[in-house]
Amino acid sequence: MMASLLDSLVSRMASFSASDHASVVSLNLFVALLCACIVLGHLLEENRWMNESITALLIGLATGVVILLISNGKSSHLLVFSEDLFFIYLLPPIIFNAGFQVKKKQFFRNFVTIMLFGAIGTVISCTVITLGVTQFFKKLDIGTFDLGDYLAIGAIFAATDSVCTLQVLNQDETPLLYSLVFGEGVVNDATSVVIFNAIQSFDLTHLNHEAAFQLLGNFFYLFILSTLLGVATGLISAYCIKKLYFGRHSTDREVALMMLMAYLSYMLAELFDLSGILTVFFCGIVMSHYTWHNVTESSRITTKHTFATLSFLAETFIFLYVGMDALDIDKWRSVSDSPGTSVAVSSILIGLLMLGRAAFVFPLSFLSNLGKKNQSEKIDFKMQVVIWWSGLMRGAVSMALAYNKFTRAGKTDLRGNAIMITSTITVCLFSTVVFGMLTKPLIRFLLPHQKATTSFLSDGNNTPKSIQIPLIDQDSFIEFAGNPNVPRPDSIRGFLTRPTRTVHYYWRQFDDSFMRPVFGGRGFVPFVPGSPTERDPPPTDLSRA
Amino acid sequence: MMASLLDSLVSRMASFSASDHASVVSLNLFVALLCACIVLGHLLEENRWMNESITALLIGLATGVVILLISNGKSSHLLVFSEDLFFIYLLPPIIFNAGFQVKKKQFFRNFVTIMLFGAIGTVISCTVITLGVTQFFKKLDIGTFDLGDYLAIGAIFAATDSVCTLQVLNQDETPLLYSLVFGEGVVNDATSVVIFNAIQSFDLTHLNHEAAFQLLGNFFYLFILSTLLGVATGLISAYCIKKLYFGRHSTDREVALMMLMAYLSYMLAELFDLSGILTVFFCGIVMSHYTWHNVTESSRITTKHTFATLSFLAETFIFLYVGMDALDIDKWRSVSDSPGTSVAVSSILIGLLMLGRAAFVFPLSFLSNLGKKNQSEKIDFKMQVVIWWSGLMRGAVSMALAYNKFTRAGKTDLRGNAIMITSTITVCLFSTVVFGMLTKPLIRFLLPHQKATTSFLSDGNNTPKSIQIPLIDQDSFIEFAGNPNVPRPDSIRGFLTRPTRTVHYYWRQFDDSFMRPVFGGRGFVPFVPGSPTERDPPPTDLSRA
Repeated sequence: MMASLLDSLVSRMASFSASDHASVVSLNLFVALLCACIVLGHLLEENRWMNESITALLIGLATGVVILLISNGKSSHLLVFSEDLFFIYLLPPIIFNAGFQVKKKQFFRNFVTIMLFGAIGTVISCTVITLGVTQFFKKLDIGTFDLGDYLAIGAIFAATDSVCTLQVLNQDETPLLYSLVFGEGVVNDATSVVIFNAIQSFDLTHLNHEAAFQLLGNFFYLFILSTLLGVATGLISAYCIKKLYFGRHSTDREVALMMLMAYLSYMLAELFDLSGILTVFFCGIVMSHYTWHNVTESSRITTKHTFATLSFLAETFIFLYVGMDALDIDKWRSVSDSPGTSVAVSSILIGLLMLGRAAFVFPLSFLSNLGKKNQSEKIDFKMQVVIWWSGLMRGAVSMALAYNKFTRAGKTDLRGNAIMITSTITVCLFSTVVFGMLTKPLIRFLLPHQKATTSFLSDGNNTPKSIQIPLIDQDSFIEFAGNPNVPRPDSIRGFLTRPTRTVHYYWRQFDDSFMRPVFGGRGFVPFVPGSPTERDPPPTDLSRA
Repeated sequence: MMASLLDSLVSRMASFSASDHASVVSLNLFVALLCACIVLGHLLEENRWMNESITALLIGLATGVVILLISNGKSSHLLVFSEDLFFIYLLPPIIFNAGFQVKKKQFFRNFVTIMLFGAIGTVISCTVITLGVTQFFKKLDIGTFDLGDYLAIGAIFAATDSVCTLQVLNQDETPLLYSLVFGEGVVNDATSVVIFNAIQSFDLTHLNHEAAFQLLGNFFYLFILSTLLGVATGLISAYCIKKLYFGRHSTDREVALMMLMAYLSYMLAELFDLSGILTVFFCGIVMSHYTWHNVTESSRITTKHTFATLSFLAETFIFLYVGMDALDIDKWRSVSDSPGTSVAVSSILIGLLMLGRAAFVFPLSFLSNLGKKNQSEKIDFKMQVVIWWSGLMRGAVSMALAYNKFTRAGKTDLRGNAIMITSTITVCLFSTVVFGMLTKPLIRFLLPHQKATTSFLSDGNNTPKSIQIPLIDQDSFIEFAGNPNVPRPDSIRGFLTRPTRTVHYYWRQFDDSFMRPVFGGRGFVPFVPGSPTERDPPPTDLSRA
């Protein structure tokens, strides 16, 4: 019955290939597959090998096979992988939600390490991969590549898949690890995209010191402006919602405005050729710190879960999509005469990306540990292995960049391009499925003490779990602002011995005396007496003190 | 600054007209305009003339003017009005949310009247408009139209704008009126689309009794199958969520699954050429009755607000879009040599649609009143006037049908088609702005006793308002199932004297003994002890009795 239905779908598709009916069929199949992914993901939740990304990827692959069989090898996918779809619609909700739900204290405490890994690490990784492919590809017969192509390959495979990483690691189980790996992922994505765009636009025939400095300046310019844009958009949303008090008439307007402003920050960054990923990430952080506290209780629950749901759907969609797209027969046709070459290229790439990642995780962890006095804040060797391993997955960002580079109009027929596209797909599938499956067991093996916490947390109550996340900061807030037992750190000495804590203290001072009175935040929401809240009333007295 | 920014946007658009950068620019502008609509709509909330639709329409028009001026009369819109965008992405959330939030008891109590208005009324209205245009258009010089074209015009202008109506009427203030006008709107949309499609596919040169019966049969077939599909999808979602208990692992999966299943019901209906509007409306009703009670408390709040927000955004988007599209210079160019004809056609159409609506509202209300014993359930004359008036607005459905009919490939240049498109735009703008603005004052003038309730309700608490909506049934539920003072209606006599109540009683019996144990619903949710709820615990003992 399923086969005949699919048969009719495919035959309908063939006859209406460009019409709106085809899009109706594709949408139906996609929505049904998304439902299947959700149900299967739920049923496989307890499975230690699987995660949602892998489930979606495998369902996508299976669907591709079915369509391939039914259409007699004519087509395997319903939609062609589109960069636009990915960068304009699917990526923003994922990254925004990550910023919205991230534990801000952990993230900012490890800010220096995250920047080391995300920026310097990506450059190292990119360099290692570029040097590697330059050496190996000359020996293989895969068409002509110039320096720009090699650098682009480096940038493509330096982009880790933060989406998949988010699913494997758990913020509550391994907070330090999560903030390091995830924070690195966000900065890494941005860095990769910046390097990639810089390479595309630079004249690489005259590569000199000046150009290298220009590249560096370009990166800092992008990083700072993108961050500022995200923070500004977040603050504007907080100010508007606080001043106009939308909840008076309708909670829907609050939720809609938060969604739109978040999306606007990303799109503005894209418009001005900044890094939308960084912008929307910081917009998420600011929104969860200020805007979220200015809306009504219902809107708070709604936004929290809606952002998580949209992000979850976008993630599932991406992996389904990559899985279905992987079997596109046209791409494989041109490499089918030399399967060995494709396998060789993929293996070389996987080897290089493992090497490239090792080349920065271990040295930079050593550097980072040098700056830390506290033993518990240091990254021990087992953790370094987990950080190295959990960043090995390559996903949709790599795919999107590879499509951008190697399927430009008129160049698709070149053999080298076809090999690069199929190799990218192979690397993404292999790394996500194999490395992804092994990550959970590896973490359990290397860091077994976290396991007890896992089962305790996941067996506890489900509903309020995600509600609690943004309240984690409250501890630190009370610790500094409310608890008189904590001594005020002496300005100079304190900064030298515990720099992050001192910065945090002054940030709190600034936040309490200037930011929160203007932009709202915890404690400045007019609570309706007796209104049901899922937590204790906020410490209004502390914040107003 | 705004002008120079827009200037640069437009010049960017001109140079990248088909590239992805143009879509980035359009998206930015659209998102920013949506934000503006939300903020202005909030500020104008207390205004008695304005509503959100009109605000969005006027902002769209203003933006169109600005773009027109900047581009020196070259273009006024960023996106061409697309039927697909409207029918595939914007309409489903609006109609689903309407079904999800509708007061089911009111809706089903007035089911017969709603069907009279929605189905028979639309046919009468369509006939009147068709006959009218056949008479008037022959006297005007506007190209050649055949019978099919005239019937299509009838169907296009018989489609009332349920979106705008929803904003003007208030479910809490005037429940009977709301359920009648809104219920009619949903059935009317479906009927119009069915008539329109039937006309497009039928051979009208051999119009005889047989074809007329076939048309009628086709309508009932569509109506029943669409309803069944919606109900089935809703029940499947309820069963899945109840059996698998998604809340155990993640509330996001529940929310995602509800969204996807709702959308799937619409898309399946489109796939099988049924009426997606009817399907998704009934899916919304079933989901709010069963599925919604099977999810966790957080998911309940989230879905309620998310569906409302998505619907609100889609509505705002549509009106913004129609406003911007209205100034498209290409459409007006071909009618600019004879502005009198365009004005005449628009005036004739507005007159006819007022006449066509009057031709069924008053006679059918009289018929409906005949069947009702209870004075309070009768539709008095003032109410009939309000029903007549509040269904006069024409909106995006008319636009979409007109585009479908009169801009087919190769026919766009015909003068008659250009006139019909511009007239449709004129009618939509005029009716939405003028009729829409007068509706609120008219209701206050004709039905002044509801005003006291209005201010009481709207000045009360905002947050829990929308939460309470699906609980309205609880009264009727307790009334029949729980309260022993209400006598069990005698099967035959009860049906004759109070048919709706008897049907309701037996439906409750069936619901309690068969449907709710299988598909869940109020009373079958395992409540976590001590978990915060925004209402009293459900009467579990009643439902299990």
